[in-house]
Amino acid sequence: MLEDGAAAIDMESWVCPLPLRDAPNIVMGHGGGGAMSGELIEHLFLPAFGPAAEAGMGDSAVVSIGGARLAFTTDSFVVKPLRFPGGSIGELAINGTVNDLAMSGARPIVLATAFILEEGTPLAEIAGIASAMGTAALGAGVKLVTGDTKVVDAGHGDGIFVNTSGIGLIDAGIDIRPQRARPGDVVIVSGEIGMHGVAVLSCREGLEFVTSVCSDTAPLHGLVAAMLGTGADVHVLRDPTRGGMAAALNEIARAAGVGVTLDERMIPIPQPVRDACGLLGLDPMYVANEGKLVAFVPAADADRVLEAMRGHPLGVRAEAVGVCVSDHPGMVVARTALGGTRVVDLPAGEQLPRIC
Amino acid sequence: MLEDGAAAIDMESWVCPLPLRDAPNIVMGHGGGGAMSGELIEHLFLPAFGPAAEAGMGDSAVVSIGGARLAFTTDSFVVKPLRFPGGSIGELAINGTVNDLAMSGARPIVLATAFILEEGTPLAEIAGIASAMGTAALGAGVKLVTGDTKVVDAGHGDGIFVNTSGIGLIDAGIDIRPQRARPGDVVIVSGEIGMHGVAVLSCREGLEFVTSVCSDTAPLHGLVAAMLGTGADVHVLRDPTRGGMAAALNEIARAAGVGVTLDERMIPIPQPVRDACGLLGLDPMYVANEGKLVAFVPAADADRVLEAMRGHPLGVRAEAVGVCVSDHPGMVVARTALGGTRVVDLPAGEQLPRIC
Repeated sequence: MLEDGAAAIDMESWVCPLPLRDAPNIVMGHGGGGAMSGELIEHLFLPAFGPAAEAGMGDSAVVSIGGARLAFTTDSFVVKPLRFPGGSIGELAINGTVNDLAMSGARPIVLATAFILEEGTPLAEIAGIASAMGTAALGAGVKLVTGDTKVVDAGHGDGIFVNTSGIGLIDAGIDIRPQRARPGDVVIVSGEIGMHGVAVLSCREGLEFVTSVCSDTAPLHGLVAAMLGTGADVHVLRDPTRGGMAAALNEIARAAGVGVTLDERMIPIPQPVRDACGLLGLDPMYVANEGKLVAFVPAADADRVLEAMRGHPLGVRAEAVGVCVSDHPGMVVARTALGGTRVVDLPAGEQLPRIC
Repeated sequence: MLEDGAAAIDMESWVCPLPLRDAPNIVMGHGGGGAMSGELIEHLFLPAFGPAAEAGMGDSAVVSIGGARLAFTTDSFVVKPLRFPGGSIGELAINGTVNDLAMSGARPIVLATAFILEEGTPLAEIAGIASAMGTAALGAGVKLVTGDTKVVDAGHGDGIFVNTSGIGLIDAGIDIRPQRARPGDVVIVSGEIGMHGVAVLSCREGLEFVTSVCSDTAPLHGLVAAMLGTGADVHVLRDPTRGGMAAALNEIARAAGVGVTLDERMIPIPQPVRDACGLLGLDPMYVANEGKLVAFVPAADADRVLEAMRGHPLGVRAEAVGVCVSDHPGMVVARTALGGTRVVDLPAGEQLPRIC
């Protein structure tokens, strides 16, 4: 009597199409935002979705509905632990979705929240997280307009998972997307990197260590507005979350078919992040951020964009860290502090699982 | 070093505000779509969200953005098992969100999909579910435009959780919401009830039984278009999912401050659903549907709406099953087959957990 649903894929004869790994099952790396996440989308989800999928399936889609040009995005948050220095899953869930919208140049307007709660989770814990969400939404100027709550039996969830989806409005004339990176563009980062990942790791079970690093979780649409207010033709914006700067820059390089050359000495990395990364054997370029952006802007606009960023509280430490080149398309290369060069690869999986 | 995040609620002194139960933890019933879900929203989420929350937090929000009148909705799906007679979590995730939009009178346009995958889940299983989603989206005429994938460690998820959020466009002049129910309205149900819940239960571990009942999962926006095409002033539409007809009608009665009187003999219930409910001690009025709607329409429009519904494949068995009254506001009363009357209460929790 157990019919097989209406799947168009014959599961008996289905062969795993992923080119890089031949494991038949999901592994943690598939959720890391790196190469394995990319191949899961490209070789599994997009073919399975078929013609119903719009090409891209990026962090945020731009759609025209009823004459309005909208950005639309969704993100699930599964960070562990739920609270960490500088924030909680609540702030991440609001700011992360606000930022995905802002990276299309959209003004975030409304968010929807969906919870998957594990049976036995203290109501006080949920109230605290929801309160953090309310405060973050108020700070970002977005409304929480609809929601959903599901409960799963104990042992089949992990306390609180939050999904937030959001809609933003894109003003006329704005066209910000990875494909617009051009040789000659200056690559700007809005501030110190690596803080979110180190903060979460510092309080993870089995790995506790003392650090002064707090998560940088913050809503970036105000900073973006300041950048766009200069009249500059900003080509690309990206928040370097899972997979860090390395994943963000590699994805942009591949999407636009350009190369990126970084000057590592210019990348702002706080000393405590360097120390923690040294201790743990991590590369700060691959560590997640939750309140930083990278921008590709024409060289002629770079100075005024930088000036505008440094005039905003979330961009005080903004730096030009590299250039977009026509050499080595699809590749990110860094000049190191010692004067050598190294390839900054797209990470395969994620050095830090469940970081957001 | 472990700071306490930025929660505005002091968790040390926090007292559970839920009036009906004094358990300090989440229980399965909080996800059932009944009274306990309602009090979780009213007494925990809305106060915690504070001024960032728009009143309501209904299944679907209506928002005006850039001159367009949009419906916006989100739903997470945690059904167990992932496949059941007549469908899978994939069809539910598409049709459920399409239906939430359609119940505002919106034309569904785009969906976003977010997966929380458990480490170790077979890729073939995910591909089959994604394929079912693609087929369902194609059938419903919606595009899957953006997405997200997270992976949680084995034992901290349950195979596949799917969240879908969606945007629909509401044409001028359409105003469909629970608050518009009026005494004198005819209450219509679009077809046979109880099929989804019975189909899922029939293959649940520890409870397998043989039945010919398949889930009724289907996208309802075409049926809604047929209803609106009559020019009738449809007041309320609702898909009776978790908590079944009982929950849907009670929520409408409370929202509008009206009573509902049903004639139980008129409610179409397939014999296999009656049999299964008898066996399990369930009331079909409380069993979830995934391809049915209830409508409140002015008496003068009822006949042509019914005729239009019966001309649509998903409304062939549509029936007028009751009336909206000014008596017993907030209450649903049914005349039974034996000539008596009974109160059809809002369920507290959910007789069938993880049904969607």
